[in-house]
Amino acid sequence: MSDPRPIGVLDSGTGGLTVVREIVRLMPGERLIYAGDTARFPYGNRPEETIRSFALQGAETLFGRDIKLLVVACNTISAVALEAIERYARDVPVIGAVLPGARAAVLRTADRKIGVIGTHATIRSGAYKKAIERIDSAAKVYETATPFLIPLVEEMMFDHDITRLTVQFYLYEMIDLGVDCLILGCTHYPPLLEVVQGTVGTRMQIIDSALWTAKEVQDILTALDLCSEPEGGGLGQSAFFFTETPLHTAGQLPLFFGEALPHQKSISFAGGAKQ
Amino acid sequence: MSDPRPIGVLDSGTGGLTVVREIVRLMPGERLIYAGDTARFPYGNRPEETIRSFALQGAETLFGRDIKLLVVACNTISAVALEAIERYARDVPVIGAVLPGARAAVLRTADRKIGVIGTHATIRSGAYKKAIERIDSAAKVYETATPFLIPLVEEMMFDHDITRLTVQFYLYEMIDLGVDCLILGCTHYPPLLEVVQGTVGTRMQIIDSALWTAKEVQDILTALDLCSEPEGGGLGQSAFFFTETPLHTAGQLPLFFGEALPHQKSISFAGGAKQ
Repeated sequence: MSDPRPIGVLDSGTGGLTVVREIVRLMPGERLIYAGDTARFPYGNRPEETIRSFALQGAETLFGRDIKLLVVACNTISAVALEAIERYARDVPVIGAVLPGARAAVLRTADRKIGVIGTHATIRSGAYKKAIERIDSAAKVYETATPFLIPLVEEMMFDHDITRLTVQFYLYEMIDLGVDCLILGCTHYPPLLEVVQGTVGTRMQIIDSALWTAKEVQDILTALDLCSEPEGGGLGQSAFFFTETPLHTAGQLPLFFGEALPHQKSISFAGGAKQ
Repeated sequence: MSDPRPIGVLDSGTGGLTVVREIVRLMPGERLIYAGDTARFPYGNRPEETIRSFALQGAETLFGRDIKLLVVACNTISAVALEAIERYARDVPVIGAVLPGARAAVLRTADRKIGVIGTHATIRSGAYKKAIERIDSAAKVYETATPFLIPLVEEMMFDHDITRLTVQFYLYEMIDLGVDCLILGCTHYPPLLEVVQGTVGTRMQIIDSALWTAKEVQDILTALDLCSEPEGGGLGQSAFFFTETPLHTAGQLPLFFGEALPHQKSISFAGGAKQ
């Protein structure tokens, strides 16, 4: 049996497109509805109750469109508001961005020393630490908030001394402590993968939470027999909603998505679709 | 004659408190109503129509409270939305943050080479360049967007190599070009004054737009005979509204304001006061 309904993707902005890109690679027949709250991005410095309230508004927008599964493609929302969204979702399965990365890290670390970087809200929540320790209680988890990395990505400063110095500043302690597996716990970070790897050296494996979240989507859809036909609508019939015309991010979209993004539309989380 | 009505202060977040601090120093009897859109801060990367729409919502909130004058204590709003606010204001005088700094710079530059740093939106608008050239058409204006400085202030990284490297990166060209007067064209920047001065050297004077905006408020109130009694309500009867409880910025408020902030309240720009 196949299920032609779309997959909903909820994000605080445009970083979740790194998850979309991986989903499209793994399951090219799936149709997607993406909702990115670019008008209120970033969420990572906000109080928890604000993040939950914004996230539920976004989730409501997507649940109203007959989705078969919701991917929360933002680590901050996943860390702070996943349970609230699941309660609201009822029968629709919800996949967050935290657990898939945590699981991949536990499988890959040799010395059971795992590092996590993310926004203030993600790190403050302790969501990664809890998820990892639930899988392997003997694993040691080192967490650092790295709020500076989002502006570095937004300004596309990849090959730059400021970026290298910032990454060193955030990660030198983890290198010293012998962390051998680092989770990029924010879907905005993948464009920095190369400079991070260059700084931490090849001894430290890097786990891109976007990639592992997409793999989880594939596993769950397969297990529940909810996949589309391989020749289903795919990207051509997908829609991308943003709460603010991502004018200033227009140049950045290919960073996250890898190519021009089709079917961009404007939406308001609070009051339904604008157009 | 004196006028006991409050001064309205509109800001995109908390940076406008640097203007408030100077107003309180210059005119301790004045009562203030501050509205900071912390829930949607920062504005500086947003499209112009969004900034105008948010700014008019905030201005509406303040005009509804019988203010005698409106200070737009945010360079981004001043650069992009001042005319729209003035049209809306009718008889209430409106003071922006751009013109006072521009005037001060023209008075102080010896070589008529003025530098301006600010958000993407402020620099893209060309508001400072236009204001300066209207006063002195022979002045040369060099503008650079410095989006990285806001996160540096938010993370309170003042005495840090990343900050020094960032400031050098943004300003080395202006130093080479012989700029002798630099406008800090964002009310979020004053906490960086020392590190900026340390980088550009003492040959370059720094104009803090917050200070000059406060002076302009004093001049206008005096000229229009709208000052409070010197022993008026002052800070004790002022109110500070934020669209999001500034939890994560609580530690930063003294940065901008210099002391604990009295009477913080929650407000929604779109739907009136929450409490």
